[in-house]
Amino acid sequence: MDFEVDLDFGDDGLVPVVAQDVDTEEVVMVAYANRDAVEATVETGRAHYYSRSREERWEKGATSGHTQAVAEVRVDCDGDALLYRVDQTGGACHTGYHSCFYRTLDGDVVGEQVLTRTTCTDPGGRPAGGSRQRQKAYPAERPPVM
Amino acid sequence: MDFEVDLDFGDDGLVPVVAQDVDTEEVVMVAYANRDAVEATVETGRAHYYSRSREERWEKGATSGHTQAVAEVRVDCDGDALLYRVDQTGGACHTGYHSCFYRTLDGDVVGEQVLTRTTCTDPGGRPAGGSRQRQKAYPAERPPVM
Repeated sequence: MDFEVDLDFGDDGLVPVVAQDVDTEEVVMVAYANRDAVEATVETGRAHYYSRSREERWEKGATSGHTQAVAEVRVDCDGDALLYRVDQTGGACHTGYHSCFYRTLDGDVVGEQVLTRTTCTDPGGRPAGGSRQRQKAYPAERPPVM
Repeated sequence: MDFEVDLDFGDDGLVPVVAQDVDTEEVVMVAYANRDAVEATVETGRAHYYSRSREERWEKGATSGHTQAVAEVRVDCDGDALLYRVDQTGGACHTGYHSCFYRTLDGDVVGEQVLTRTTCTDPGGRPAGGSRQRQKAYPAERPPVM
């Protein structure tokens, strides 16, 4: 698939992707995509990413149901970062918050909790909290590779 | 400097940073930061990043004047991505657009051009367009390292 705008996937074949809710304008997550994931996103209209730890493409919400319908894909000035403008079903974050960016650096909770349990959208494919215990409490969409 | 929320800078010592305009809610750029850049951002209230190509910290707008006053720094669920909530002076993008994400993947221009010439906020420190010619036409904040 050729895109009208050239993308620069760099040495690792990946670009960072920001997902932004089209209704609330919240930045809900950051993840990565390879060309295959971007093509799948365009073809299906649903957000796909690439897990660096599992080394495979994944579809947001494929197992949790918390999918992202992609209204538009935007490209930055030098073609090495993407913005998915999404309609987020449920919450984007495994913690139950609408956005993964629900805390400030000072630890203040500023996000809205919309679910009690959902699925993490870890940009690196690493489990949130970095522990298997946490994953047991809040299952990931796919079993993490530690 | 200790933060209330643990940050995971990964193997390369970096986290991706999304800059979002607090007034328009636009995602204006994506770049990277190391711990030093995050600390400088918190200490000064102005957005600092890390250039992977130049291998040094840089302050957004230091030479162009198109600074980002940081109202809030948010952290994602697993501490390996940041969101700078900023008051953007001028445009974030060297192309003169308010946001670096001014195009769709189909090549449609959806962003607002606010300046005729400003400074690129390339996440990798790579010049937009990947050419020295482009850099001559639209000078970067600092000379790029190709």
